[in-house]
Amino acid sequence: MASTTYHPGAPPLQVAQWFNTREPLTLEDLRGRVVLLHAFQMLCPGCVEHGIPQARRVHEAFPSADVVVIGLHSVFEHHAVQGTPEALQAFIHEYRLRFPIALDRHEGDGSIPLTMRSLSLSGTPSLVLLDRQGRIRLHHFGHLDDLRVGAVLGQLLTEPTPEPLPDAAAGTSAAPSGPAGCDANGCPLPDDTPDAMH
Amino acid sequence: MASTTYHPGAPPLQVAQWFNTREPLTLEDLRGRVVLLHAFQMLCPGCVEHGIPQARRVHEAFPSADVVVIGLHSVFEHHAVQGTPEALQAFIHEYRLRFPIALDRHEGDGSIPLTMRSLSLSGTPSLVLLDRQGRIRLHHFGHLDDLRVGAVLGQLLTEPTPEPLPDAAAGTSAAPSGPAGCDANGCPLPDDTPDAMH
Amino acid sequence: MASTTYHPGAPPLQVAQWFNTREPLTLEDLRGRVVLLHAFQMLCPGCVEHGIPQARRVHEAFPSADVVVIGLHSVFEHHAVQGTPEALQAFIHEYRLRFPIALDRHEGDGSIPLTMRSLSLSGTPSLVLLDRQGRIRLHHFGHLDDLRVGAVLGQLLTEPTPEPLPDAAAGTSAAPSGPAGCDANGCPLPDDTPDAMH
Amino acid sequence: MASTTYHPGAPPLQVAQWFNTREPLTLEDLRGRVVLLHAFQMLCPGCVEHGIPQARRVHEAFPSADVVVIGLHSVFEHHAVQGTPEALQAFIHEYRLRFPIALDRHEGDGSIPLTMRSLSLSGTPSLVLLDRQGRIRLHHFGHLDDLRVGAVLGQLLTEPTPEPLPDAAAGTSAAPSGPAGCDANGCPLPDDTPDAMH
Repeated sequence: MASTTYHPGAPPLQVAQWFNTREPLTLEDLRGRVVLLHAFQMLCPGCVEHGIPQARRVHEAFPSADVVVIGLHSVFEHHAVQGTPEALQAFIHEYRLRFPIALDRHEGDGSIPLTMRSLSLSGTPSLVLLDRQGRIRLHHFGHLDDLRVGAVLGQLLTEPTPEPLPDAAAGTSAAPSGPAGCDANGCPLPDDTPDAMH
Repeated sequence: MASTTYHPGAPPLQVAQWFNTREPLTLEDLRGRVVLLHAFQMLCPGCVEHGIPQARRVHEAFPSADVVVIGLHSVFEHHAVQGTPEALQAFIHEYRLRFPIALDRHEGDGSIPLTMRSLSLSGTPSLVLLDRQGRIRLHHFGHLDDLRVGAVLGQLLTEPTPEPLPDAAAGTSAAPSGPAGCDANGCPLPDDTPDAMH
Repeated sequence: MASTTYHPGAPPLQVAQWFNTREPLTLEDLRGRVVLLHAFQMLCPGCVEHGIPQARRVHEAFPSADVVVIGLHSVFEHHAVQGTPEALQAFIHEYRLRFPIALDRHEGDGSIPLTMRSLSLSGTPSLVLLDRQGRIRLHHFGHLDDLRVGAVLGQLLTEPTPEPLPDAAAGTSAAPSGPAGCDANGCPLPDDTPDAMH
Repeated sequence: MASTTYHPGAPPLQVAQWFNTREPLTLEDLRGRVVLLHAFQMLCPGCVEHGIPQARRVHEAFPSADVVVIGLHSVFEHHAVQGTPEALQAFIHEYRLRFPIALDRHEGDGSIPLTMRSLSLSGTPSLVLLDRQGRIRLHHFGHLDDLRVGAVLGQLLTEPTPEPLPDAAAGTSAAPSGPAGCDANGCPLPDDTPDAMH
């Protein structure tokens, strides 16, 4: 449970479009607060059934001055259907999501969006928790129960806010590799992804 | 509970494309079997959380020789996002739906698809149960619990199969009018729908 | 699903004490109505989690003129703790049960109460459905989902009420034998029960 | 959320009998570990449905070297039915509880057991969290969601283990007073309890 000794800084968010926020958010601006990044896809059953309701619960349980919840729409399949800003806007509207949501940015013909790649996410849903210094303290693919998520949040909330570290290396790839194809837990990246991380 | 004395015949399904079936289904061909029509939209939270899981349970609980479950994708909002065959195909794939699903057909610039209109559905999710004669015996907007759905199915299954009636009038409009905007129960039609039924 | 051709009449209820009813109920008096008997034990987790909530849902979903729900407290273990009228009264009070509940009667030193024996129940929770003629049409040990229970109720509700049959033979023993020890599904009778039915 | 500045030490547990533990536990012996006390009654629906499953989840989610879960059976009503060691033993057996459980001790003719009184609990279920120093850091009547419980546990787990304080004053009475009679949330103490705390 966030037990690694070295905690890399989170890479910057690379966003095509923001929703539910007046202006774009940057992790630098959020230094001093705990950040919960919930990576999802609107057509991922595990995200809709478990991940998004959990993100909503965290958003409601903790004051935004302490914990900032950010939804990250990281589309790596069915791009034509769920990858557009219009699709995400409709989803946010119908599911009445209130927390800030970022559409992960694609570049060139890569099927995996940039933030998902720089965070080394294994699929959706994925949960990434950043401490007050912007360091990655939890990096999980699939569903994690509220007790464990709450315990890490409680731990991070007790930590002081030292000076930001210069370190901003790429995210750890400690995340477990998921099963093939969407299941109740989530949608893993295909093993033969052309632009898989290395 | 399906207690009206006059039961109109169901109008024919008007389908743009079928999924999970080798050839198009017609209600005529299904005479002699009980039919459960579940009208949904892939971006309707009440459909994804309640309606579709219930349709799946009915599909698994009853042999298809007795009860035929048909999903009807009746898109009346966010057409560009969820209204295409590609979108429905992706949804069916990710949610691993196994029962036959029809994409309700649009005509001209009407926002409400044809089968939804001829069945006088008030929104999604909607449940329509047809008896062995193809007559509408239950017509419900919103979620109906398994006990009540099971009771109507049990009643219809006990009825014999007489000769089909010539009657094939339009569906009853006994369905309650839903609330405005999607909520946990479903997505009602807007009151000011340009091509609302009358 | 209640598909056997011969349906034995239910044996009379043998009750030590009634709760939630002004006067004792008899199956004879209930002829013409469908009866749901839910056999439970207050210390049976499967009963508390699944069976009793389902009995409550049936009680609320169907008018008592059509379906009568009766709870049958058939204690076959921990008699000293849960077998007294005081224990059952306290349980009914705390769980706010509203439907009639009978304390199954014990005789001599038998650990299995009389109604449970005459109905050949395999353990708790058990569900027994009687048609309008008082015949056993469903006999199930463990949990049965609402769709299936509803379907049998719907079937039985459509049947007419002929003259009561003289037949009142002992209950069928079609019930599956349950696993040993309480589990999530229920509490089966021990195989070596001294006064097991034969 | 454990936001008070002064944290009283927990009073000693006063136990009639222990279950699921070789020898009696004392809070002194548990210094250095976080302790979750879950006060319940076996006939309290809110305890059986929410509190006990949550206690089980905490017991499974955290190593006992970090968090010790203790069930406290604090019977303040229906004593004859649920107040005996035999009743509690049967409940523990049927519900397959694995964590240590203490039967709160009664004295004289008081209806409220001693530990419940010294902890100033308002009813069941109640949750009390002790830090590594044995101080009361959370004191809650009714159900508290996993996120919040997890957050407090996470916070307490990050705290160091200083020398035990001499302070061992009686528990705070910060707990909200509950509604009258058992409901979905729990069973509050009656307002006119003869030996209510003051």
